[in-house]
Amino acid sequence: MLEANFNSLANSYIRNLTPYQPGKPIEEVERELGIASAIKLASNENPLGPCPSAIVAAQEAMRKAHIYPDGGCYVLKQELAKFLNTHAMQLTIGNGSENVLEIIVKAYLTQGSAAVISQYAFLTIPLLIKSYGADLISVPAKNFSHDIKKMIAAVTDKTRVVFIVNPNNPTGTYTTNDDLVLLLKSIPGNVLVVLDEAYHEYIDQADYPDSLSLLKRYPNLVVVRTFSKAYGLAALRLGYAISSLEIADILNRARLPFNVNTIASCAATAALRDQEHIMKSVALNKQGMQQLEESLKKLGVKYIPSLGNFITIQVKNSAVEVYQKLLHEGVIVRPLGAYDMPNYLRVTVGTFDQNEMFLKALQKVL
Amino acid sequence: MLEANFNSLANSYIRNLTPYQPGKPIEEVERELGIASAIKLASNENPLGPCPSAIVAAQEAMRKAHIYPDGGCYVLKQELAKFLNTHAMQLTIGNGSENVLEIIVKAYLTQGSAAVISQYAFLTIPLLIKSYGADLISVPAKNFSHDIKKMIAAVTDKTRVVFIVNPNNPTGTYTTNDDLVLLLKSIPGNVLVVLDEAYHEYIDQADYPDSLSLLKRYPNLVVVRTFSKAYGLAALRLGYAISSLEIADILNRARLPFNVNTIASCAATAALRDQEHIMKSVALNKQGMQQLEESLKKLGVKYIPSLGNFITIQVKNSAVEVYQKLLHEGVIVRPLGAYDMPNYLRVTVGTFDQNEMFLKALQKVL
Repeated sequence: MLEANFNSLANSYIRNLTPYQPGKPIEEVERELGIASAIKLASNENPLGPCPSAIVAAQEAMRKAHIYPDGGCYVLKQELAKFLNTHAMQLTIGNGSENVLEIIVKAYLTQGSAAVISQYAFLTIPLLIKSYGADLISVPAKNFSHDIKKMIAAVTDKTRVVFIVNPNNPTGTYTTNDDLVLLLKSIPGNVLVVLDEAYHEYIDQADYPDSLSLLKRYPNLVVVRTFSKAYGLAALRLGYAISSLEIADILNRARLPFNVNTIASCAATAALRDQEHIMKSVALNKQGMQQLEESLKKLGVKYIPSLGNFITIQVKNSAVEVYQKLLHEGVIVRPLGAYDMPNYLRVTVGTFDQNEMFLKALQKVL
Repeated sequence: MLEANFNSLANSYIRNLTPYQPGKPIEEVERELGIASAIKLASNENPLGPCPSAIVAAQEAMRKAHIYPDGGCYVLKQELAKFLNTHAMQLTIGNGSENVLEIIVKAYLTQGSAAVISQYAFLTIPLLIKSYGADLISVPAKNFSHDIKKMIAAVTDKTRVVFIVNPNNPTGTYTTNDDLVLLLKSIPGNVLVVLDEAYHEYIDQADYPDSLSLLKRYPNLVVVRTFSKAYGLAALRLGYAISSLEIADILNRARLPFNVNTIASCAATAALRDQEHIMKSVALNKQGMQQLEESLKKLGVKYIPSLGNFITIQVKNSAVEVYQKLLHEGVIVRPLGAYDMPNYLRVTVGTFDQNEMFLKALQKVL
């Protein structure tokens, strides 16, 4: 057997990937620093967690842990379709929205085709585009926001998909309805516009797009949402796409037969029925955001106004340094070097006490 | 906006896929036929389910449902490495072994490269190969088994991967250690040999390969296993690959950052610690297999001797017809038309009572 370099055998676009760096698990940080009761404000998780009924539903579903999932997610799709006032056949369910985004990339992108995305957009998407060998067209942002006119100009005959993260993670900025409609009107109707709305539950701005009504007019629109943020089910991995029947049919061919965990679909179905919990979570986030903004102003710390459940702050020296110091204070946040924002830290809005703990630590380390 | 045909926009190799047809969920069958207490012997699930400690671990993990999974699966990898006597860095964890198989295909196959697989092999693999636009080289089987000599002959300079399903689903046939070594010795060392061992816990045949010791001699070997069968965790989607460090590094670049559900990794970690439950499950399967074989002989029904937790039987008339009749008796099995075996039904080995119920129903409908 000749000695082989398996690295060289892999597809070149896989070999050249820099893996996504997730936020550190609390246990790992506590292990490394020998501290206890650290708080994690690094992954935009809902500090209230999921509604109790979702936990009960998941625990009950464990009784059938040996049975394969319903590959069609029949019950969840019925519930979602009712909730969204859409048709169950327009839905594609995935193992987290990252899986839904991958299914879209797998179905519509390949070597030789291109996708357009904004600078500073959620890093998993560029990573996905590259992992399928497609050309990544990154469009410079305008004040950390998507520059829609520049994105329209970046569309060529090679472009199959334009990604809009709304609001954008990690900047918290958003694309208005007018800008989104401008994009949809300006580009060819055979280019998909994929709208990542992971944080949409937190938003009440009047000029934030009503994407589901736009979908009725623009069949090239695909809306992607998740149960990982406001619904508090990040551990379970449940995301979904809403699209035209035709696109949904394609996406459901491209996905794996059993890509969705039964526990996740049972918990999500229960969580969907408890909208009071969502309202409570959104209200807590609003209060926490005010608390953080006011204190950051007092501390003279600059930040990017955010519509999500997180806020990105600017520090004078290296963000990694501040991140390390905060770690030693037992507060885990996210430095944004991977986003070419070496002087910025992303902080998740926590409970009142968690926010206070972060603010005290920040004051101490700055 | 010009009217677009989104079907024609998708990658042609996705458009042309025929989606995998999973076994019907019991609820769906009962709904359709208006019957109760149907039994499902269609998906090779462990009738005992998972060990109780796995259920408890999963239910406890739900308390942190709002926290993202540890993308590195630190705890599960440590436990698996200890159990397999391998290094944690040699492991790639996936959302079921179908996800692990997809990661391998994504990393090593693309348009213009080819993969070799046997006729009658687990259908998800050919589906995956096609879904990445690679050439599928299907090698005719010999008495429903992999024909290793023919598979060796089918390897060309375009071949990146040879898939061996051992034992094979749905035929239950297996590839001996001698044949596997012959394959590994005969093909270039830069062609991956991916061994799908989903059912290996059930096997005690002396000439069944010890794949992990072969891995030490053949670094192009990749062993794929699952918690969906003997471990009884099919609903949770947990599979893994064991490979050289170099291949594992590539596979971990190709996977999504959070492809494994926290509940699944906690349950799998607990299940791994209860090997008594596995022995119990394997013993039950052995008894059930004897029960089925003896009765099938008495009934004069031909079957393919199987090493898995399932047995494939031959019927004189259309298997779909027999399948439909069995459905009305409340017994769900799997007709194998999709495998070009229109006169064969795959039946999962159940509990003693489930097997009796199936045998009575079969006798009635034949």
